[in-house]
Amino acid sequence: MIKTPYQELEDRFRRLDALAGAQAMLHWDTSAMMPSGGAASRAEQLATLSALAHTMLTDPAVGELLEAAQADTHLDPWQRANVREMQRRWRHETCVEADLVEALSRACSACETRWRTARADADFPAVLPSLKEVLNLTRQLARAKAEALGLTPYDALLEQFEPGGRSATIDTVFADLKDFLPDFLDDVLAKQAARPAALHLQDPFPGTRQKNLGETFMRALGFDFNHGRLDESLHPFCGGTSDDVRLTTRYDENDFTSALMGVLHETGHALYEQGLPEAWRGQPVGAANAMSIHESQSLLIEMQVCRSPEFLTYAQPLLVDAFSGSGPAWETDNLTRLYTHVEKGFIRVDADEVTYPAHVILRYELEKAAIAGDLQMEDLPGAWNDALQGILGIRPSHDREGCLQDIHWFDGAWGYFPTYTLGAMTAAQLFASARRDMPAIMDDIARGDFAPLLSWLRTNVHEKGCFADSAQLLVQATGEALNADHFKAHLTARYL
Amino acid sequence: MIKTPYQELEDRFRRLDALAGAQAMLHWDTSAMMPSGGAASRAEQLATLSALAHTMLTDPAVGELLEAAQADTHLDPWQRANVREMQRRWRHETCVEADLVEALSRACSACETRWRTARADADFPAVLPSLKEVLNLTRQLARAKAEALGLTPYDALLEQFEPGGRSATIDTVFADLKDFLPDFLDDVLAKQAARPAALHLQDPFPGTRQKNLGETFMRALGFDFNHGRLDESLHPFCGGTSDDVRLTTRYDENDFTSALMGVLHETGHALYEQGLPEAWRGQPVGAANAMSIHESQSLLIEMQVCRSPEFLTYAQPLLVDAFSGSGPAWETDNLTRLYTHVEKGFIRVDADEVTYPAHVILRYELEKAAIAGDLQMEDLPGAWNDALQGILGIRPSHDREGCLQDIHWFDGAWGYFPTYTLGAMTAAQLFASARRDMPAIMDDIARGDFAPLLSWLRTNVHEKGCFADSAQLLVQATGEALNADHFKAHLTARYL
Repeated sequence: MIKTPYQELEDRFRRLDALAGAQAMLHWDTSAMMPSGGAASRAEQLATLSALAHTMLTDPAVGELLEAAQADTHLDPWQRANVREMQRRWRHETCVEADLVEALSRACSACETRWRTARADADFPAVLPSLKEVLNLTRQLARAKAEALGLTPYDALLEQFEPGGRSATIDTVFADLKDFLPDFLDDVLAKQAARPAALHLQDPFPGTRQKNLGETFMRALGFDFNHGRLDESLHPFCGGTSDDVRLTTRYDENDFTSALMGVLHETGHALYEQGLPEAWRGQPVGAANAMSIHESQSLLIEMQVCRSPEFLTYAQPLLVDAFSGSGPAWETDNLTRLYTHVEKGFIRVDADEVTYPAHVILRYELEKAAIAGDLQMEDLPGAWNDALQGILGIRPSHDREGCLQDIHWFDGAWGYFPTYTLGAMTAAQLFASARRDMPAIMDDIARGDFAPLLSWLRTNVHEKGCFADSAQLLVQATGEALNADHFKAHLTARYL
Repeated sequence: MIKTPYQELEDRFRRLDALAGAQAMLHWDTSAMMPSGGAASRAEQLATLSALAHTMLTDPAVGELLEAAQADTHLDPWQRANVREMQRRWRHETCVEADLVEALSRACSACETRWRTARADADFPAVLPSLKEVLNLTRQLARAKAEALGLTPYDALLEQFEPGGRSATIDTVFADLKDFLPDFLDDVLAKQAARPAALHLQDPFPGTRQKNLGETFMRALGFDFNHGRLDESLHPFCGGTSDDVRLTTRYDENDFTSALMGVLHETGHALYEQGLPEAWRGQPVGAANAMSIHESQSLLIEMQVCRSPEFLTYAQPLLVDAFSGSGPAWETDNLTRLYTHVEKGFIRVDADEVTYPAHVILRYELEKAAIAGDLQMEDLPGAWNDALQGILGIRPSHDREGCLQDIHWFDGAWGYFPTYTLGAMTAAQLFASARRDMPAIMDDIARGDFAPLLSWLRTNVHEKGCFADSAQLLVQATGEALNADHFKAHLTARYL
């Protein structure tokens, strides 16, 4: 049977998806399992798979098939959306030479490995040469994409994670937040200082109990362990594939609250992956949407749901049971106070939702400067520390608290950071709609019944895949375009 | 700089090796980590990588480059050997269509997944359709290779694992063993029955302690944990790559002896992988030799070394310490008795070295018949049970004790089984040479000093890679061609 150009494209993208799945599993293994001596050969494996994927996607036949498929009038709307997504990926890939893709993959693998040690030792110079190489190749990538897509180099990188996202828009929104946050933060801290301090929970909290508890909450929220697992890595993430989602966290035996909320955050990502449209597995239209949407799913679960008094009402007896807790520190009120504590801190992943945008804005401004060539990596530690001093008034004492804390730049994810705060705004906007659509939702959450929420997310977000772009998806789900109002309203309601 | 044909081949085979490494890691993950719902997408990943490797290796340019490289008079002996190994792999691959390779990979993934459940449930019919499909495709593969290589279909499969191995030779050796073993086994069992029975070790033996102990012995034997790890899987194996060796075992809390010896067996494989010539990593000549050599390394460690009274003298205090053992059952004599206990049993991986060849001969005869078309898979359980009855006089009561016990056929490894017994003979022959070369070696082992042994193996086996074929390697290491005399002498010395 002769295949249509569209069918031929589906076959080719199914293979590309399998290749991407293999890469995702190897990335997970690198972080969660691999002994350090395996790094060099792992880098070879990943570079080879990257090069093969590049070759497959840039095969001249793909361009011809895409042209033919776009002219095919028999395609249904999902198939047409699939062609649009194929086209988008193809355009991103064809503007870059295979050699650069492979060199960047290899440089990122090497740099990420060095970063692991450098971070532990707070030794920025140990990773500096590798980081410079990654940035150098990333800037080449940015220039190549900028030229082909008619964007600035930074926007060309951003476009990889956030189709349609532009730094001009982000500059405006972030300026808005920079304006709103300082006074708001002062008010929140003043109000917090006027209350009795949250009581300390008596440690230790054994890692195995933390893990069991995390799995209990994951299961309650709807995570399917037949299609995923929970493991440990230095930098928590949600990886793998939609059919086999690999969550990771790191445990601190002196403080379970951070790892637990990390697991719940990643569970938001995982529920999205597991809920993507089954009928479109392996096809671009069936993949997750822009990173702001992905991040909205983790922040909706973590910030909107799991730090609410209602969730903590449900969680309280489970926490008490897991850690044999007793006394006033373990009352729901105190747990809520702990979980909505606001503090100027150094570490982004430990930051509360009020100070979080400051961490993102700092990184966004530094990475824009680095891509523009206005910030050299030798100057990164100082620039970082100055910027944090300026934005939060605190200064890291070493680089583990500063520019070594996040994996992103060392692993080549430049242009990614702003999506976190776009995600926070999207989460607030989506959850406001969910509450409007389901007035009893907070009561359901207090009872530990997450089925209505998951069902709403499945229908309005997860099962949409990439059928519409992120802006359209949000309008369809909430009736309005992305704006910061719901995020500000949420912060104000919770903290003032 | 223009590359020579030889250099161009090295580049291409380095990429193929990276692809094979990625496949190896995914295979490990499938067995040791993957949740069952990930099976379908994993099968897609593995099939895609297989197809890509096939396409890379069968690129017409490779044939031309090989021809040019063979005519290159500037190559040194290792480079020439590398070309010879490249040529061998290329011949194996060019005689098979890409569609068949991919279909077989997919069928094996699906069948292996079903086998996992079928084995647990002792439900052969549940896996029968998948197994028939694997056999059907394997027979197509065998016919294609047989035609191209001028071999019988069975020998063409055997050649994949054991270059130069022929069933005519194996038939002779196995006939010899079939002749030797029954009377010998009777004598051993009679002698054993005349002694007091070995004392039972008081369980339970917690899995974590078994794991710690296994890692202690692995480290002592020379396993480098910077380049490998120990995990759990249903069917123990040694996988991964030379730079990142992944060992697996399964723990029984009622009996540590089997898992521990399993770990030591796989450690023999792992030491070989880790000791392959560093300068030739990623090239065919730097890869492990025939499976009989690989298996000789595991059996040398397990059977020749670790079941000896000398090794158990060293191990005894560590075992006592790990499991808080006390009393006469934990004396070295009793441990030796337990570890050299001979018994007619159903399970190959639990079999002692006296009855083991019977298990191999049974599988060898059945798989020869299946490939020849003389045994239908519907008849496999009955044929298996009849054969075991004939050869050991015992009959499995269900298929978990019978034809479902081993992964090999379900995962497509037809033609592999005889290499186990070729490996046992090779191990005995190599160890006899090591003892001759190092008269103090058994004393070293009793003191827990394995450095002299590892050094001998590195020099005589590991660092040779595929420079010479297995027959030449053995002659160089031992001064004689492969024969069963040392194996028989070893059994006689230990058991009579």
